[in-house]
Amino acid sequence: MSVRGKVLSVENMNPFVKNMEYAVRGPIVIRAGEIEQELSKGLKKNFTDVIRANIGDCHATGQKPLTFLRQVAAICTYPDVLLKDPNFPSDAKDRAQRILDGCGGKSIGAYSDSSGVRVIREDIARYITERDGQASDPDDIFLSTGASDGIKIIMKLLMTGQPGKERAGVMIPIPQYPLYTATIAEYNAYPIGYYLNEDKNWALDVNELKRSIDEAKPNCKPRAIVIINPGNPTGQVLTKENIQDVIKFAKEQNLFIMADEVYQHNVYAKGSEFFSFKKILTEMGPEYNNMELASFMSTSKGYMGECGFRGGYCEVINLDPAVRAMLLKSISAKLCSSISGQAVMGVVVNPPKPGEPSYDIFQKEKSTVLGQLAEKATMVTETFNSIEGITCNEVQGAMYAFPQIKLPQKLLEAAKAKGQAPDAFYCFNLLEETGICVVPGSGFGQVEGTYHFRTTILPPVEKLREMLGRFKDFHLKFMAKYS
Amino acid sequence: MSVRGKVLSVENMNPFVKNMEYAVRGPIVIRAGEIEQELSKGLKKNFTDVIRANIGDCHATGQKPLTFLRQVAAICTYPDVLLKDPNFPSDAKDRAQRILDGCGGKSIGAYSDSSGVRVIREDIARYITERDGQASDPDDIFLSTGASDGIKIIMKLLMTGQPGKERAGVMIPIPQYPLYTATIAEYNAYPIGYYLNEDKNWALDVNELKRSIDEAKPNCKPRAIVIINPGNPTGQVLTKENIQDVIKFAKEQNLFIMADEVYQHNVYAKGSEFFSFKKILTEMGPEYNNMELASFMSTSKGYMGECGFRGGYCEVINLDPAVRAMLLKSISAKLCSSISGQAVMGVVVNPPKPGEPSYDIFQKEKSTVLGQLAEKATMVTETFNSIEGITCNEVQGAMYAFPQIKLPQKLLEAAKAKGQAPDAFYCFNLLEETGICVVPGSGFGQVEGTYHFRTTILPPVEKLREMLGRFKDFHLKFMAKYS
Repeated sequence: MSVRGKVLSVENMNPFVKNMEYAVRGPIVIRAGEIEQELSKGLKKNFTDVIRANIGDCHATGQKPLTFLRQVAAICTYPDVLLKDPNFPSDAKDRAQRILDGCGGKSIGAYSDSSGVRVIREDIARYITERDGQASDPDDIFLSTGASDGIKIIMKLLMTGQPGKERAGVMIPIPQYPLYTATIAEYNAYPIGYYLNEDKNWALDVNELKRSIDEAKPNCKPRAIVIINPGNPTGQVLTKENIQDVIKFAKEQNLFIMADEVYQHNVYAKGSEFFSFKKILTEMGPEYNNMELASFMSTSKGYMGECGFRGGYCEVINLDPAVRAMLLKSISAKLCSSISGQAVMGVVVNPPKPGEPSYDIFQKEKSTVLGQLAEKATMVTETFNSIEGITCNEVQGAMYAFPQIKLPQKLLEAAKAKGQAPDAFYCFNLLEETGICVVPGSGFGQVEGTYHFRTTILPPVEKLREMLGRFKDFHLKFMAKYS
Repeated sequence: MSVRGKVLSVENMNPFVKNMEYAVRGPIVIRAGEIEQELSKGLKKNFTDVIRANIGDCHATGQKPLTFLRQVAAICTYPDVLLKDPNFPSDAKDRAQRILDGCGGKSIGAYSDSSGVRVIREDIARYITERDGQASDPDDIFLSTGASDGIKIIMKLLMTGQPGKERAGVMIPIPQYPLYTATIAEYNAYPIGYYLNEDKNWALDVNELKRSIDEAKPNCKPRAIVIINPGNPTGQVLTKENIQDVIKFAKEQNLFIMADEVYQHNVYAKGSEFFSFKKILTEMGPEYNNMELASFMSTSKGYMGECGFRGGYCEVINLDPAVRAMLLKSISAKLCSSISGQAVMGVVVNPPKPGEPSYDIFQKEKSTVLGQLAEKATMVTETFNSIEGITCNEVQGAMYAFPQIKLPQKLLEAAKAKGQAPDAFYCFNLLEETGICVVPGSGFGQVEGTYHFRTTILPPVEKLREMLGRFKDFHLKFMAKYS
């Protein structure tokens, strides 16, 4: 019998699950929920609401769903009535009918092929082809439960199944989105962290890539490199040249490229442009265009922000056909991703076209969301940089800022006395004093001795302005207290 | 550089993924798809359509979705308009509003808590409490992407992270649903197969449980026992006494109980009744009622058959609180399951009540589906038993029959010459001759030297009758050919 008479204890459970960390939903977020409970019970605080800037959850912070997208999803759900409803536009009905025709029994209640509904994969391939000016094959695409699921599926294939030095090494940016470290821990792989260059707006530096892989080689078998572009939590958008450098490095080191491109619609800064890794790699010609590459996309981000539908896709090119068969087999045990999520992904890649009845309203809703995000990106960058002791790279894309905070010695000592990381100490105090919930930089990784936090730029403009005001007051008082 | 210049080859990929098998979507199903393509191109065959009896995909075989369920899901998807639509009944609107009120920003496009929308978990707890006459706690429940996801999450916790003899052993029935062997292979666990007793209508025999665990103990650390009730692929419904025996055995051997109860609404036979493992274990009193138990449920089966929504839940009781925290953490890296799937699960556990406007139609639709399934269960059992060389236990529940076929020596030799398992050889011939797609027993496991196949009972009554007719003709001719 094990501890306390239970079969399963923390001592004997899966040690790799125990090692996982996922800061975006970590202890600070649990505390935020408790504070909300306290407020709802009438407890008096310096603030009346918690502002959840910890997670890229667009609708939860007030963004409205796109009309066309929800119309198509609703018709797919209840077609017997809504396909005939005169209040629904014809293009929404056409999209829904096209998806339903691709479903077993013409119902989104049927399982799809493991890789997803065929017509949706065809629409995704067409979208990628138009985006990149390079052909895409529906058979290279599978639908996933959000991007997270696709990332885990591909990473799983790359594992060696061996312990210790024989483990697969996976290169990840530092700072990174914690799904990567969590998955690497869960799979007992070896994380090879390469630091993004904060002084160069979080660029990838090839010398740093080389340093990190060389240091890791005695400890693992490096197999893959993860790039997040536009960056999470760092908000940078990679240049074409930077992408070329990474591809050359991956070729040289024989690495599988995992391109997390879920923020491909979220580019705000003048002069910044999204280039997919596939486009650049293909354009680099015969020496590079047969490299293995997986690109991940999601319905949760962009202008649609449909997190709850858990829609996503992965395009994986140049895979050995026998490995591709194994990939399909490994997906098939999960049967398929949610068909309503697939349908939403289908709309994102096949939006209303000029001349269709929903074109104008769709474009208007889309550009409103993206316009506000651009405005908020600027507001956040400028505000943080206006505060003494804080520096923040330009939020060129994605939905986050990752400002650096200079913490005084006395504060470091106070944090140590409390047994907290200094940035966690800072963020917990911020939460208790202002109700603002952000995630400490230590949850994403940072250069030792530097301190950051990640905030989303998602709250509505006025709310965000208020949040930045509350933040600034707190910061100045808090620094004064410890200086 | 690896084989053929690829980073990833079958030789160096994750060996545990390579070992996975998933017969329900295996080679015979791929061939069925090819035949459909051939038919659509006008190729002449002995039949005009493929009957897919390989997978429990209700809507794909013609079952209609339940009106109320789809109304609620549609309103949740497009509430701005449909909450005001006079064509939708008030109880559907109430259910949708209740779910939306529990969502961030009142949108199913927001992430939920990792364990799922709170009000839906409350409704599930109420459903379980009423079903069992035993209290259920919403905090013991998490929503999952179908039942498969929940099963994988719990099994993952139980892994030791050690190789060889230190691996976790998981007891599974033979025959079993292939998700279990696939997941055990993926996690590099050790499968401890216990044979169900075909002579006693697929009952669990405690002596057989003891035999299998004793034989396995030198090879692994047994940690869990999986029971599928009602049975897949075997269609039996366990008696209360049989469940008590299994619980006593699990206690004695210190095993975590994993109860796959996704077919809890699918009980047809006179005298059969569904008892949850939780109910029985709780009623067994202090010696047993603190045992760790996970029960899995799905929207994909029952009378609703909503596979594509990927809704499901897991209730896990008596977990060490520290392990429960680890469980929640491990789910949080996937963020949450699809909210539309959660909403459908919410309707299943909170259907219209007497006096509500949708009560009558809901009851009628539900009882029609279940009545037809009962009729088909009888038809399938009786037809198979009427054919010489075939025996089939009564389909008491679930959606499948698993008949045994006696194969003549000449046929075994012919199969061997083709390099196929005899039952696979049989099923491939059945498919080519009749268009009927069923899954060979070897994909589920069976006593050595016996041969079976699994067929669903899902095709509409008339189609199923036609299928059984085609089947009988084939079987008699095929046996004659090899006798």
